[in-house]
Amino acid sequence: MQDRAYALFEEQQKARGIDVEAVKAKLKALKVETPSWGYADQGTRFKTFQKVGVPRNTFEKMEDAAQVHKYTGICPAVAIHIPWDKVDDYSVLKRHVSDLGITIGAINPNLFQDDDYMLGSVTNSNAAVRRKATDHLLECVEIARTVGSKDISMWFADGTNYPGQADIRKRVHWMHESLKEMYGALDSDMRMLIEYKFFEPAFYHTDLADWGMAFNMANKLGPQAQVLVDTGHHAQGTNIEHIVAYLIGEYKLGGFHFNSRKYADDDLIVGSVNPYELFLIFYQILDAIADSDAKVRQTAEGIAYMIDQSHNIEEKIPAMLRSVMNVQTQYAKALLINLDEVKDAQERQDVLGAEEAVRSAHEMDVTPLLYAVREEMGVPVEPLKAYRASGYGEKIAARGKGGASW
Amino acid sequence: MQDRAYALFEEQQKARGIDVEAVKAKLKALKVETPSWGYADQGTRFKTFQKVGVPRNTFEKMEDAAQVHKYTGICPAVAIHIPWDKVDDYSVLKRHVSDLGITIGAINPNLFQDDDYMLGSVTNSNAAVRRKATDHLLECVEIARTVGSKDISMWFADGTNYPGQADIRKRVHWMHESLKEMYGALDSDMRMLIEYKFFEPAFYHTDLADWGMAFNMANKLGPQAQVLVDTGHHAQGTNIEHIVAYLIGEYKLGGFHFNSRKYADDDLIVGSVNPYELFLIFYQILDAIADSDAKVRQTAEGIAYMIDQSHNIEEKIPAMLRSVMNVQTQYAKALLINLDEVKDAQERQDVLGAEEAVRSAHEMDVTPLLYAVREEMGVPVEPLKAYRASGYGEKIAARGKGGASW
Amino acid sequence: MQDRAYALFEEQQKARGIDVEAVKAKLKALKVETPSWGYADQGTRFKTFQKVGVPRNTFEKMEDAAQVHKYTGICPAVAIHIPWDKVDDYSVLKRHVSDLGITIGAINPNLFQDDDYMLGSVTNSNAAVRRKATDHLLECVEIARTVGSKDISMWFADGTNYPGQADIRKRVHWMHESLKEMYGALDSDMRMLIEYKFFEPAFYHTDLADWGMAFNMANKLGPQAQVLVDTGHHAQGTNIEHIVAYLIGEYKLGGFHFNSRKYADDDLIVGSVNPYELFLIFYQILDAIADSDAKVRQTAEGIAYMIDQSHNIEEKIPAMLRSVMNVQTQYAKALLINLDEVKDAQERQDVLGAEEAVRSAHEMDVTPLLYAVREEMGVPVEPLKAYRASGYGEKIAARGKGGASW
Amino acid sequence: MQDRAYALFEEQQKARGIDVEAVKAKLKALKVETPSWGYADQGTRFKTFQKVGVPRNTFEKMEDAAQVHKYTGICPAVAIHIPWDKVDDYSVLKRHVSDLGITIGAINPNLFQDDDYMLGSVTNSNAAVRRKATDHLLECVEIARTVGSKDISMWFADGTNYPGQADIRKRVHWMHESLKEMYGALDSDMRMLIEYKFFEPAFYHTDLADWGMAFNMANKLGPQAQVLVDTGHHAQGTNIEHIVAYLIGEYKLGGFHFNSRKYADDDLIVGSVNPYELFLIFYQILDAIADSDAKVRQTAEGIAYMIDQSHNIEEKIPAMLRSVMNVQTQYAKALLINLDEVKDAQERQDVLGAEEAVRSAHEMDVTPLLYAVREEMGVPVEPLKAYRASGYGEKIAARGKGGASW
Repeated sequence: MQDRAYALFEEQQKARGIDVEAVKAKLKALKVETPSWGYADQGTRFKTFQKVGVPRNTFEKMEDAAQVHKYTGICPAVAIHIPWDKVDDYSVLKRHVSDLGITIGAINPNLFQDDDYMLGSVTNSNAAVRRKATDHLLECVEIARTVGSKDISMWFADGTNYPGQADIRKRVHWMHESLKEMYGALDSDMRMLIEYKFFEPAFYHTDLADWGMAFNMANKLGPQAQVLVDTGHHAQGTNIEHIVAYLIGEYKLGGFHFNSRKYADDDLIVGSVNPYELFLIFYQILDAIADSDAKVRQTAEGIAYMIDQSHNIEEKIPAMLRSVMNVQTQYAKALLINLDEVKDAQERQDVLGAEEAVRSAHEMDVTPLLYAVREEMGVPVEPLKAYRASGYGEKIAARGKGGASW
Repeated sequence: MQDRAYALFEEQQKARGIDVEAVKAKLKALKVETPSWGYADQGTRFKTFQKVGVPRNTFEKMEDAAQVHKYTGICPAVAIHIPWDKVDDYSVLKRHVSDLGITIGAINPNLFQDDDYMLGSVTNSNAAVRRKATDHLLECVEIARTVGSKDISMWFADGTNYPGQADIRKRVHWMHESLKEMYGALDSDMRMLIEYKFFEPAFYHTDLADWGMAFNMANKLGPQAQVLVDTGHHAQGTNIEHIVAYLIGEYKLGGFHFNSRKYADDDLIVGSVNPYELFLIFYQILDAIADSDAKVRQTAEGIAYMIDQSHNIEEKIPAMLRSVMNVQTQYAKALLINLDEVKDAQERQDVLGAEEAVRSAHEMDVTPLLYAVREEMGVPVEPLKAYRASGYGEKIAARGKGGASW
Repeated sequence: MQDRAYALFEEQQKARGIDVEAVKAKLKALKVETPSWGYADQGTRFKTFQKVGVPRNTFEKMEDAAQVHKYTGICPAVAIHIPWDKVDDYSVLKRHVSDLGITIGAINPNLFQDDDYMLGSVTNSNAAVRRKATDHLLECVEIARTVGSKDISMWFADGTNYPGQADIRKRVHWMHESLKEMYGALDSDMRMLIEYKFFEPAFYHTDLADWGMAFNMANKLGPQAQVLVDTGHHAQGTNIEHIVAYLIGEYKLGGFHFNSRKYADDDLIVGSVNPYELFLIFYQILDAIADSDAKVRQTAEGIAYMIDQSHNIEEKIPAMLRSVMNVQTQYAKALLINLDEVKDAQERQDVLGAEEAVRSAHEMDVTPLLYAVREEMGVPVEPLKAYRASGYGEKIAARGKGGASW
Repeated sequence: MQDRAYALFEEQQKARGIDVEAVKAKLKALKVETPSWGYADQGTRFKTFQKVGVPRNTFEKMEDAAQVHKYTGICPAVAIHIPWDKVDDYSVLKRHVSDLGITIGAINPNLFQDDDYMLGSVTNSNAAVRRKATDHLLECVEIARTVGSKDISMWFADGTNYPGQADIRKRVHWMHESLKEMYGALDSDMRMLIEYKFFEPAFYHTDLADWGMAFNMANKLGPQAQVLVDTGHHAQGTNIEHIVAYLIGEYKLGGFHFNSRKYADDDLIVGSVNPYELFLIFYQILDAIADSDAKVRQTAEGIAYMIDQSHNIEEKIPAMLRSVMNVQTQYAKALLINLDEVKDAQERQDVLGAEEAVRSAHEMDVTPLLYAVREEMGVPVEPLKAYRASGYGEKIAARGKGGASW
């Protein structure tokens, strides 16, 4: 049945003018980075439910992450968070990871869990705290250099809870000073990916509250600084794919933190709340990859895809497999958009035709395509099923409860 | 200057047709319940910053709460949370509290921090978990009886994170069954106050997601069940004072959890984000207290005012004093609305006139009034200043860091 | 290719345990009512762009609506709006409609475009205005009787723009009085469908602001009164399918006004913004239709599906065809959910499994299924394409610009 | 009583360290521009209710605007909208306005009411439409030159309703090209104020959707281009005063369109929904005016304050007087913030103290201050009352119904 399904799929897509081999090549080239903390226990402010089998340290997190790569073939890199993943000797970690067949991805500094940062890190009115925060950023650049990472992914919890609490404009300058210093320490092939967030944990103002503030900061710093879009960090109603298109047009989109939200920064499995939004994001990226402007193309091709979620009630490894597969599914659907058809309709000013050309691709079933791609990549056609059958879950149950909490 | 200010205030209000003595009587009758957990360390999912001097147990929480009553004169009752405030012998707690010149207010069951409740408490598809949850509710009724509380304030974290995760309609029935059993255990002078919440910690659906669901549940249970409005538990844009007016008109508003929010359930100091909203809530309540329908009046007069906040970065006792004072300030401003003037304008269909009659009261300064009221009540005219001068803050510093985390 | 696609589809679904014939029967039974005003020129407050070929009167609107039925086979009824569709002799209209092979669907009273209603219709503090509004409602019952409609679909624009502008609780009573009178005039097989709306055109409070207020009103009126859900009338983030499930559980969901929104009441083509939401709504309805409670089943089966959109920039008939097809597509996808699989996963408390059982149906391609169903129904497999080829659009161009504006 | 009130106010403020004379000077210097269209009939997409006495043309709009200046003394300029206020000879209009003791303020091009602009103006894929739109912008520069205006206030309705409808990135370039041409036509003392809007009338994407897009455009154009903040054009929850502070810090805040919103772009009377927000905006501006950076100071001092509202149900002139008075009231309250006290608390990292220093000023009554200022300016102490007593409203009733609809 599977073969017939693929044969039919191929025939149908050819009839639509889609180059299926090119689609497959793109699917094989897709890389989705998973986060070390996504394998740990996480929760809400009300409760962190502890799960059996959660990794007890960074090394075990890497082992779990290697499983996700093993069953999907598209997750070779793992993002780490300092100090959650702080180890005595990073070369030991690097070797461990290499032995597992994966690599260390983006480095994520943590500037929000030290008591000193309660009222701000790089924006703190206390110069000593800013110094400490900047030093941590420099330390992360050094770690990146040691482990061979090229991206430093920076989220700042900095903000205030009340009007008047702090000098908004001064904080902008302090942050700029700190990041300028860090920027100077980067190797020429490293990137700073600057994240923004609408709110939380700050509830009055957040220093980098939206893409505009992150973008302006990146502009001031230079070409190695780009913006990172976390899909859960926007006001209700925000058109995220518009921001994506816009930032690519400015050569400033560097990466994504994927997750789903219905309300605030819910950090649910990506693609579970509004899969069409994820599809539309990929449509904008693919449209940019087909652009005539080489810098637009390079920017779009250079985007780092990373997952950043909080699996409060889910089994960790299955949740991550599901997340990666959801990304793959929506990416595959977006690859079926006939961009020429869209452009033609746009030029005719045919509103319904252009919308149809985009949406219809989303309504197609990409299961036969994904099965074929996975087969060609040598990974199981049904990653989650294969993982469940592998016995790994039972094996790690021996870790018991009470693993890492981030 | 203070005397002249009050004399002028009185003269101005008389000229507006306001009975200042009646206003003062109402201000003296205002009672605002503070929550035991508001004195403890609380935080966001990212971090709980520990403060020096935080109470180490329920007895110390009560001592701190007694300070708030001492300096304001309007906070004689303290809400408790079970099991955060679980003690071996509630009569000992009751005596301690009584010695402090205060009483125990609403009992708050906790159905969200036990591992069993990860996928629901009274709505869990596992009957044993529902039984356990119901037993906890019955235990809380018993505790209420022991400590002399009349209100049981019930917030359910129950909900789901994903489509399909659970049977939405069955969960409604399960919750109803459980609450029916609890309702049957109430003394005739006890109330169940049913809270609702838009989202968090559930991110797909929350079983009691809005006032309508809580109201319908209360209707099914009977007259001793009413709705509790937490000012931070609504969708963006929701007109809370409309819900307040509506529920009073249905005789079903039982109480408030006051706090402020700009984004989600931020749990900031009440009155710090949009003080006008708090004022408009009081306007609707005062309008109901002046109604010709006796049941409307009784409902409005029976509303329990409680604070429910999370002081993540603030000093606890000062934050609570500020909260209570903010409630008092906005209540005082609302008492200056000339309701007859509003009604006259409404009858003339004078939109601008009616709006002016309401808003203008908010623009007045009630400092002289509050000073006079406090003086007559025998409490400091400036509660926060007096508290700071008292040395209590320095005394409790001896408790060190690492107090109760709820 | 089409035949092979269907054969494969059938085989795949059978393997999943789906009864394809039952699915097809349900698809053939689906009825979607289109609104007469959806064929007219509509716009935003900034501008109504006039289109060539727009119907100049109700008779022409019906002719256009008949086209939508002709090409889809599932739109036999057309909702009308009084007075937009007021005619001298409704029996003439009824005959015209009948000649076109369609019927008149829900009657929609209009209580917002008369100068008298500026400050409210059935909630106006002026009794004469309330009388006039009530008389219009009674007139609509009479029209329904004349044209053979069973549903009266009632949306009230009533509300206020400023705090204090009106007495919120009195307005509730006035509305109730008016609707009680109308309810008394209904035939025993007629329904009142009570719509609610978060805001617009009222910007401070809307008398029926949410499902809870509409539900409570329907409860007070009796079993012939039910709630109508317009998918664009909620606060951001609202879980609409939760409300749908809840109202069915209370036997009070009567109908839908379908449309899409990203921001406010955008009134775009249904299924164009977040198709998954529409799918999830249908999932809840189908789940209810499979319930063991007969009243739940009847309620779910009695739901009236209606489109209510504003085609500001689209060609009218194609936009309506697209809308109807989108409803059909998402309904078809929801019919592929294996409800037993969902229930099993729910009982095992398998969060990821239950979610997967729902979402996976959405990822399937229902094109072969819809082609087969349409063929069996004797309508074109590609309705929009067939309509475009028919020449009707060119024919009505003769109407010119300046057709009906509602 | 009024004199005693002022004497007491002065004494109190001096005790707080406020320089009352400086405050009064600032209040006298405040200028609030009113919009010609705010005197006309406006409505929602559902209905425009026509009012008696509405101006029938631009000349009459100016006469009404002159009344608002007459009674407040702070509204000497009137914004006009082209083509709503198109006249044959602008020098005649200029003379008329001058005779009324006022001037013409910002010029507002209209690029959304011509049929050609249905799918975009300066972003239209049709070059001829873009040319036409650009020519209109150039025409507006010419009109500005003729009537002596220095600000051109530009709001673009441009956007799309559906995914795929248009090429998002191309539209950015087209808009840039057009505005560059316009920028080149400006006199050296003219400003382009670029407005942004979250949504409406476009419901999928709006080309200038947020401050970041307007800011980036202004940056590319040059120093004569700045951003205009309309207080109703943001996503729910957006911290507007943060954006205000940020833009001033970048020397790019040029002006405001004031109005109130609870939901979307409700365009209600400014200060009627959340007066504290308006106060906090002024706090940020005053904080910037006290900055040590001269360019920050100049930017803050150069901000143009304009009202942009839709008086759907209100009497026009009284609604405008109320709006202006609300701005004045909140500005006056913000002037009472002791900025040194705030800074001191910020430096001590005293969160509650800093918040208190800001909020407490909002709780003060500025009536005595405003009466004194008005008296010294030679305008009535109660502008609305004086206007009502003047008989002007009765006089213009002779205009009848059916005045200008914008």
